[in-house]
Amino acid sequence: MELARPSKRTNGAGVQVEDTQICVVMVGLPARGKSLIAQKAQRYLRWLSIDAKVFNVGNYRRSDTPHPTAEFFDTSNAEGERMRRAAAEAAVTDMLKWFREGGLIGILDATNSTKERRRWIKERMDKNGIETLYVESKCDDEDLIMSNILEVKTTSPDYVGQDPEEAAQDFRNRIRNYEKVYQTIDQDESDMTYLKIMDVGKQVIINRIQDYLQSRVVYYLMNLHIKPRSIWLSRHGESEYNLGGQIGGDADLSARGQEYAKLLPELVRKSVGDDRPLTVWTSTLKRTIQTARHLPKHYNQLQWKALDELDSGVCDGMTYAEIKEAYPEDFAARDDDKYNYRYRGGESYRDVVIRLEPIIMELERSEDILIVTHQAVLRCIYAYFMKKDQRSSPWLNVPLHTLIKLTPRAYGTVEEFTSSGISAVSTWRGQGSVAKHEDPTSATVSLGTAGDGEVAKA
Amino acid sequence: MELARPSKRTNGAGVQVEDTQICVVMVGLPARGKSLIAQKAQRYLRWLSIDAKVFNVGNYRRSDTPHPTAEFFDTSNAEGERMRRAAAEAAVTDMLKWFREGGLIGILDATNSTKERRRWIKERMDKNGIETLYVESKCDDEDLIMSNILEVKTTSPDYVGQDPEEAAQDFRNRIRNYEKVYQTIDQDESDMTYLKIMDVGKQVIINRIQDYLQSRVVYYLMNLHIKPRSIWLSRHGESEYNLGGQIGGDADLSARGQEYAKLLPELVRKSVGDDRPLTVWTSTLKRTIQTARHLPKHYNQLQWKALDELDSGVCDGMTYAEIKEAYPEDFAARDDDKYNYRYRGGESYRDVVIRLEPIIMELERSEDILIVTHQAVLRCIYAYFMKKDQRSSPWLNVPLHTLIKLTPRAYGTVEEFTSSGISAVSTWRGQGSVAKHEDPTSATVSLGTAGDGEVAKA
Repeated sequence: MELARPSKRTNGAGVQVEDTQICVVMVGLPARGKSLIAQKAQRYLRWLSIDAKVFNVGNYRRSDTPHPTAEFFDTSNAEGERMRRAAAEAAVTDMLKWFREGGLIGILDATNSTKERRRWIKERMDKNGIETLYVESKCDDEDLIMSNILEVKTTSPDYVGQDPEEAAQDFRNRIRNYEKVYQTIDQDESDMTYLKIMDVGKQVIINRIQDYLQSRVVYYLMNLHIKPRSIWLSRHGESEYNLGGQIGGDADLSARGQEYAKLLPELVRKSVGDDRPLTVWTSTLKRTIQTARHLPKHYNQLQWKALDELDSGVCDGMTYAEIKEAYPEDFAARDDDKYNYRYRGGESYRDVVIRLEPIIMELERSEDILIVTHQAVLRCIYAYFMKKDQRSSPWLNVPLHTLIKLTPRAYGTVEEFTSSGISAVSTWRGQGSVAKHEDPTSATVSLGTAGDGEVAKA
Repeated sequence: MELARPSKRTNGAGVQVEDTQICVVMVGLPARGKSLIAQKAQRYLRWLSIDAKVFNVGNYRRSDTPHPTAEFFDTSNAEGERMRRAAAEAAVTDMLKWFREGGLIGILDATNSTKERRRWIKERMDKNGIETLYVESKCDDEDLIMSNILEVKTTSPDYVGQDPEEAAQDFRNRIRNYEKVYQTIDQDESDMTYLKIMDVGKQVIINRIQDYLQSRVVYYLMNLHIKPRSIWLSRHGESEYNLGGQIGGDADLSARGQEYAKLLPELVRKSVGDDRPLTVWTSTLKRTIQTARHLPKHYNQLQWKALDELDSGVCDGMTYAEIKEAYPEDFAARDDDKYNYRYRGGESYRDVVIRLEPIIMELERSEDILIVTHQAVLRCIYAYFMKKDQRSSPWLNVPLHTLIKLTPRAYGTVEEFTSSGISAVSTWRGQGSVAKHEDPTSATVSLGTAGDGEVAKA
């Protein structure tokens, strides 16, 4: 029997990413959001199964000089200059090693503030057949810079244990030292591929984008914004199929599901507040539309087919016991590699991530959104924001009748849960199990557990 | 019985396009590809069911002055200046009328070469609650400009019946008159939303993109290129299901289908030539992969789930007679509005277009591609390139065992057909019919019929 597994050459982008390796070189003065951009790009790419890694030059430098003062960054300080060069060298050397091992998108997170430094990186990469893409964040908005200094930099490892006021003052001095030598990307570098983001996306310049993968990265980065906002997630209310332990289908809500739908406006009002405009997205299936139907009329509502539940193909409408009976090899194969297993005539988690990519892009562009969707889809969206890996995300326990609030912050996403108090069956299933309703074990990875991706501090 | 029809608020972009109306203002000297960009944007948006229309100021001017000489465009020629202003006025007035009737994206195709003119348009639109998006094509590459002059302008209605050499000379003089007053978009206009495309995408500047619909238009336009290339399309070879008149499924090729697969490399070689690198895309279904399996190994091959056949949901594997028997109301509803009808648990043509959007974007970025896919998917791709409307495209006759070559040109797409000579059943079906294999009637809209969209000449 032949299982429909995605071939190595099938991926979300649909391109031969194997053929392209890109060094994304961050450029910009301190406190311009470079590390935030680098981290978000890494998270997005990994979610799409594109191997990406951030190399933070500051981390290399810190191993020699854990708590430098602003003078260290003065260009006339020869010793400081030498050590900062050495850190850049070490980071680039490690990145090239990682590329040789098959890495696809390496992100060099540093100021890279001179043309000479940028040219040096390009030459190193050219020699190794690696493309370079420069991403400059240029920001002259004093308020934005100050909020970045206060929010992020005073929590930097460079200033651990120091007085925040003094740390901020020292950091401003450090920026002044960089400003003396800083060269923005201009026509001298018109042979280079670059994206220049001015004042957090107010203006964007894109130069010499050569291939599809570069264009994906650029399109993602140009859609980011930093306005504060939250994303609310809820599964549909308990459905008739949930009661019977059947998967898929287009069933109506159960009586308890309808109760949840009636309570949802109040849960949302308490969490969102009265004044914030909210847009509600549902799938095209009845159970999500019914769940959203009592929400206030002044919220915009949109149905997305991309938010429909993972298509279980020939197994649609069956219970897990029936699936194991009818397709024992498929049942075992799915438990073995749930992320990649594609139901006969249906989808895998990998497929769902691919069709959710435009949803993620739109979420990045949007402000407050409430998404009412399905277990597998919610797992994928949650995995994006919380950096869950492909091994664990398909097994996450996402309880019914619970409102989840995600708030993206500079270094991670804050999550809050509100249970409605309305009981519902459990639709979570442990590996190997065919139970209709199984209680998650204590070892179950539930929402609310810390992400497994690395979060580097700048 | 409730049929799953897409609601008015469900669309490809997933946004409330009803809330946003945009005037796209082309900016640039003559022969910079403005009309080509305008036409492509209109075609793309209409394919996504977003109502778009080009208003070509030259056409308004021509109704008064059919064959002007270069002197007419001299800014010191007061009478010429007055008439060109009147033409712009008339185009803007018509566009505003069209917006009041519910139009979404109006494209003003003219040079709009001064800041004063652009400011005037913005003020007119602001007053009417219409967003403006300026799209400047700036090109200093003499070769590109000359090829545009020769290819397009000497076939312009302004020069009908004139000697091409003289026409080209006159046109160069006309450009010189525009150059005297031309003002590129710069920091004086930083409050405006604009996209500046330099040298056909070598560099792109994007300023103040405000919402999702603007970002879609901008992303599409920044992906266009003008390198000559072709797109080859083929359905999979005849399948076992085709023989039985069944739809959907994941059947193997029939004996004749396998014969086609064996012949395909030779058909492709003759059409593509020996030296051009070709990338082959298939769906994830066996019949397309089997059809492509004898193609040369040096062609890159990629499987896209987005190229899978329209999902017929509960009707998967049935014949039309069985569908009519089991779901008579659905059968009638589909014939009544085939584009919008969504199979229970499956898809509509509208849904397929939405999932094909990334494929179209990638095709716009790519050079030579061969796509081996399915009848409904091929109809949607063909509709994009050939401007077929939603009423006719789902009924197009796409014969099996035929290689189709599409070559995008400045004002339309050239199509060529190569029949393999290997016979196959017909899978075309007329309205109301439940025949397993029906011969297209003489009234059938077949591939190769002229598109039904309008093609304005610059």
